[in-house]
Amino acid sequence: MNEKALQEVLEGVIRGVVQQLGNQSVTSATTDVNTEDSIPVELSARHAHLSEADAIALFGAPLTPVRELSQPGQFLCKERVRLIGPKGVIDNVAVLGPSRGSSQVEVSKTDARILGADAPVRQSGDINGSAGIILASQNGIVGLEEGLIVASRHIHMSTEDAKRFGVADNDLVCVRLEGDRPLILEDVLVRVNENFKLAMHIDADEGNSAGWSKAVSGKLVGKKCGAAHGLCKN
Amino acid sequence: MNEKALQEVLEGVIRGVVQQLGNQSVTSATTDVNTEDSIPVELSARHAHLSEADAIALFGAPLTPVRELSQPGQFLCKERVRLIGPKGVIDNVAVLGPSRGSSQVEVSKTDARILGADAPVRQSGDINGSAGIILASQNGIVGLEEGLIVASRHIHMSTEDAKRFGVADNDLVCVRLEGDRPLILEDVLVRVNENFKLAMHIDADEGNSAGWSKAVSGKLVGKKCGAAHGLCKN
Repeated sequence: MNEKALQEVLEGVIRGVVQQLGNQSVTSATTDVNTEDSIPVELSARHAHLSEADAIALFGAPLTPVRELSQPGQFLCKERVRLIGPKGVIDNVAVLGPSRGSSQVEVSKTDARILGADAPVRQSGDINGSAGIILASQNGIVGLEEGLIVASRHIHMSTEDAKRFGVADNDLVCVRLEGDRPLILEDVLVRVNENFKLAMHIDADEGNSAGWSKAVSGKLVGKKCGAAHGLCKN
Repeated sequence: MNEKALQEVLEGVIRGVVQQLGNQSVTSATTDVNTEDSIPVELSARHAHLSEADAIALFGAPLTPVRELSQPGQFLCKERVRLIGPKGVIDNVAVLGPSRGSSQVEVSKTDARILGADAPVRQSGDINGSAGIILASQNGIVGLEEGLIVASRHIHMSTEDAKRFGVADNDLVCVRLEGDRPLILEDVLVRVNENFKLAMHIDADEGNSAGWSKAVSGKLVGKKCGAAHGLCKN
């Protein structure tokens, strides 16, 4: 085989490889994450979790369950609260049970602006130094020095789901929402617990931006988001 | 060169190519689009464009400019309107000039829900069959049978910018917003006109979802978004 023939063979091989990899270039970034299965997407409307003491201060009694929620053990309560901020009021806010160690109110950035409160984007439970808010009912009033947050977008999944998707607790993933206004949300927190039911939770602003409806599902498109190009990589 | 030596050379070459392309796999999807330069991102608050007849019905006179906007020839007016929908009212809504052939009101999905109107996501000017809304001022009232829309996210750019970014009028592109809550918006409409100044316009819901501030800019990450994996491809 002479030099020229070898050159031709090499070029042919390279062209083939380039073509093949070119076709796969978009998917090759996410090979060790399961990008095929859908994730149900639920819109979290504004809501409050109350400590038992705050529930009693507001309603004179512990919380009353009326409906189970998608995550096992969580329920919607009969009770509703009014949120009072320095600039505005939001009425008829859902209370979710069971009661927690500390009260926590989850709103969207839009809600926070209406209230006039600078609520930080936080993972549920991480309320240290977050915004204050006043809760009121027909029976009582409670001032929270902290506890008002915008909940970070997150996915609840069981240990089995995590294995299936190739992710672990506290991973940040990118998820494409296939609504009328498609988008890819980065920095979506993965929460794994054997009791969790697979569901992604977004807030009302995120839902509106995506054209969310109950039919919209999410697709994992990668484990980490590259700052350089904004696409999701492992 | 014997068979085995040739085999080794080929394998070496293939490994090299695979490695090189592997490193580039994320960027290779977007090679003919300029993904480097930043795009200023402006948040479009709710606003109304009025026909001259509607301006006169509401204010008894043509619109009064008070401040130029980023797009040449566009201005904020002294006048403000109240939006009245079947379920709610939004006060103090900005009016932008100059007046247009038909009145058009641009709101977010959040606003539309407050008003109780089913405003479709549309490109500015495409109001055929969109939602109705009532406009009111202290002097008058105007009922629009159509004209209430949620404006599609879009980028204004000059002919030169379009050349620089490798895009054309009416292209749909994907843009990464590098805010506190990073995300990639798909289906961003490119509008090219020699008079346009480079600016991406998003609504308040999109801004909130991205953690938008005036410091946030956008990066083009591709020309078309693949339904299969949600990543941007050419």
